[in-house]
Amino acid sequence: MKKYERLAAEIDLQISKGLIQAGEKISSIREMSHFKGVGINTVVRAYEILEDRGQIINRPQSGFYVLGPHSSRSLTPPRQRKLLPRGIDNPNLVSLVFESAQDPKTIPLGAACLTPDLYPSKSINKLIRSVVLKQPDLLGRYELPPGNFDYRRQISRRLEKFGCLIDPTEIVATNGAMDALGLALRATCRAGDTVLIESPQYFGILQALQQLQLRVVEVPTHPVDGVDLPQIEYSLQKFHISAAVFIPNFSNPMGILMSDEKKAALVEIFSRHGVPIIEDDIYAELSFQGIRPKPLRAYDKSGNILTCSSFSKTVSPGLRIGWLATGRYQKRIQSLQFAASMGASSLAQHVMAKYIGSREHERNLRELQVHCLHQVERFSRTILSKFPEHTRISSPRGGFVLWVELPMRTDSIELYRKAFKDGISISPGILFSASGRYRNYIRLNCGNHWTTGVERALLRLAEHVDASECNK
Amino acid sequence: MKKYERLAAEIDLQISKGLIQAGEKISSIREMSHFKGVGINTVVRAYEILEDRGQIINRPQSGFYVLGPHSSRSLTPPRQRKLLPRGIDNPNLVSLVFESAQDPKTIPLGAACLTPDLYPSKSINKLIRSVVLKQPDLLGRYELPPGNFDYRRQISRRLEKFGCLIDPTEIVATNGAMDALGLALRATCRAGDTVLIESPQYFGILQALQQLQLRVVEVPTHPVDGVDLPQIEYSLQKFHISAAVFIPNFSNPMGILMSDEKKAALVEIFSRHGVPIIEDDIYAELSFQGIRPKPLRAYDKSGNILTCSSFSKTVSPGLRIGWLATGRYQKRIQSLQFAASMGASSLAQHVMAKYIGSREHERNLRELQVHCLHQVERFSRTILSKFPEHTRISSPRGGFVLWVELPMRTDSIELYRKAFKDGISISPGILFSASGRYRNYIRLNCGNHWTTGVERALLRLAEHVDASECNK
Repeated sequence: MKKYERLAAEIDLQISKGLIQAGEKISSIREMSHFKGVGINTVVRAYEILEDRGQIINRPQSGFYVLGPHSSRSLTPPRQRKLLPRGIDNPNLVSLVFESAQDPKTIPLGAACLTPDLYPSKSINKLIRSVVLKQPDLLGRYELPPGNFDYRRQISRRLEKFGCLIDPTEIVATNGAMDALGLALRATCRAGDTVLIESPQYFGILQALQQLQLRVVEVPTHPVDGVDLPQIEYSLQKFHISAAVFIPNFSNPMGILMSDEKKAALVEIFSRHGVPIIEDDIYAELSFQGIRPKPLRAYDKSGNILTCSSFSKTVSPGLRIGWLATGRYQKRIQSLQFAASMGASSLAQHVMAKYIGSREHERNLRELQVHCLHQVERFSRTILSKFPEHTRISSPRGGFVLWVELPMRTDSIELYRKAFKDGISISPGILFSASGRYRNYIRLNCGNHWTTGVERALLRLAEHVDASECNK
Repeated sequence: MKKYERLAAEIDLQISKGLIQAGEKISSIREMSHFKGVGINTVVRAYEILEDRGQIINRPQSGFYVLGPHSSRSLTPPRQRKLLPRGIDNPNLVSLVFESAQDPKTIPLGAACLTPDLYPSKSINKLIRSVVLKQPDLLGRYELPPGNFDYRRQISRRLEKFGCLIDPTEIVATNGAMDALGLALRATCRAGDTVLIESPQYFGILQALQQLQLRVVEVPTHPVDGVDLPQIEYSLQKFHISAAVFIPNFSNPMGILMSDEKKAALVEIFSRHGVPIIEDDIYAELSFQGIRPKPLRAYDKSGNILTCSSFSKTVSPGLRIGWLATGRYQKRIQSLQFAASMGASSLAQHVMAKYIGSREHERNLRELQVHCLHQVERFSRTILSKFPEHTRISSPRGGFVLWVELPMRTDSIELYRKAFKDGISISPGILFSASGRYRNYIRLNCGNHWTTGVERALLRLAEHVDASECNK
């Protein structure tokens, strides 16, 4: 055992015994070197081991803090890297992931989709038939931005139920959440601007940023501790940031739920710097605890938060209906929407206006939440028992995706290609970074029913990972 | 009578008598000055008068050509201006125009809308009910880009009928024509690039260009002669143009139909320069002659043309369903669409797939064509008889808007405001230019039924124009 390994083991023991507890600060590198009579380098390397295991975290300009005892299967925390605005250099694999999701012969573990029969299509179809019968002229009219008032009022009412007050007049109807995100980005940024994002981040968001010619500062999010407020504050001070994008409720891919305190603190930081936050709230209704957490918007007083969401993950992907709470960007967004798409489908808005407040909606959401929880658990168990030893997984608190860290040398693009040949679709980790990180990660969609096909697909993936391990 | 007026009258007489005919070249300024023994300035001013009346046209680097005898009520041809790339500086009145179109108490002469009962909503509603009954799981799935194959195949078949071959695999489903236009612009340009447009141009297109941070070169289109090929060629040689936007079939606002020869020539010029053309083909089915003219795409061999269209003007504005023939930009557009909106509504695509090839579609289109023709004629007659003497109007060949040139000193924004107070919505001309032109123009929507309300609205507008004339 080397010196630094001994030191790491010593501190590990203190944490395991509870002598130093989660949230407490530990000695600085200089202090520790002094106390223990070892070189600076020894302490640096020991702390690196503890950081990598997720036991301690380095908060810039503040020091090292304890996160908790070591679990060998939870994700490796991010290494500190120099934060820098950069262009997005993302391989164009996204369409491939989506295309393979469309092939009925493929086991769809790539795109985040639920099996169609989980959506309340029967109720939605019934509402569609009733709306067109009762309002035969409806489709003969544009439903111009900001959209149907009833639809927007129902969204406002649902949010109010969970402690978030947004006036219906501030909400606009959109063609899904990505349409909302695009409008929000265009309202707050111009081409060439820099956007702060957490890392890893959903590839659809990265692609949207890239297509709008935006640059990013990627602030690594800790798998346990969540978004890194000191590094965010540092980036806001150091760079000219035009906006930020976060998924506070069940982030994609890690499934992290931001705590209420953290949400308030994050909103406060951005409000202080006068920089808008765009939040993607699409998974919020799919909490494993059953209660919809508040969006960041609930903590905002300044109109600084733009909340994007849709019903594509909970009610119907085919309707293409979402919404955007515009904050103080209402006028700008409405004008953007006129030129971009003339608003969303009138039928979809009228149907959702009737569905959102229904008991059927509540009932179906509860069923979906239970389904997602069970599926994520089943996937987790199978991966932890069948994948090679050094595989680590996220512990999502909601949603239906799992972030899987494979043994260090696994190339997830190679894995993607092999799996594709076997009729299995996955999302390679590299898609979730603007700068080529997460090469040994994959995201798995757990939204399908558990079938022998899905189980076999996971076993096949495990074999491929094993094989690529042996080849190295 | 001044010298230059006498010279103008002389040439006018020769044209009226048919001594010089449409299409023929007349003497250059220098030659004419020499023949007639008058100063250069006299000839310049005489030619200006004839240009303003639409009798002759100045083709740069070529000379002056006869257009035809003078009609006192046809639009004034554009004055030559220096062509220059410029940013778009457009007053944010567009949302106002649309908003007032939504108010049921307003006479909607602003936005280009048909009365809802003109659309075949009964058939569409029936198809909607049948599609959701027969495919109960349809809305539980994404209909990912490029969209439903049947829908795209039906569009391809319909175009084939009118002599335009586009493979269905090249077509993508969009959320209406503006969504298609946005995708086409983003596939061909980056922020800061310059786009060639004809002038006047539909304000929705100008707004889309502005929002994408694009600059424009505005090439004036002649009300009789149409787009100005020599000036377009000149602009392509002189400036770095990334793309062009045209409405070849029933342009908006002038309703011009580009001839087949001109379409072929335009396509050839752009193909030679390797610059893509984006065409907005949304009004093509509303020809007063009953035959759908070909899109520019029909003349293209190089994949250089991106054709945008939708069913919002002919079948249903509420469905929000359109299409884009992508030319050689297919991959790029599909990838843009994934991040922008995840594609169009599956229900709308399935419904239109069943409707496009139906007899009902043909029948309804014919009814609409007749309606549009009658309405445009009625509006034209009323305007020519009730508006002040110097009012001139377009002679559209299809569609349902009229471009009205009011006496020189009329301020159409002031007129817009006065009309708005009277519950009448109009589109001020200044919206159709990137550089503040067309201040004394308005565009009127003739798509409604002819009612006493509409007639009264036109008379009221005439009074306002009269009054503003007297005040000057």
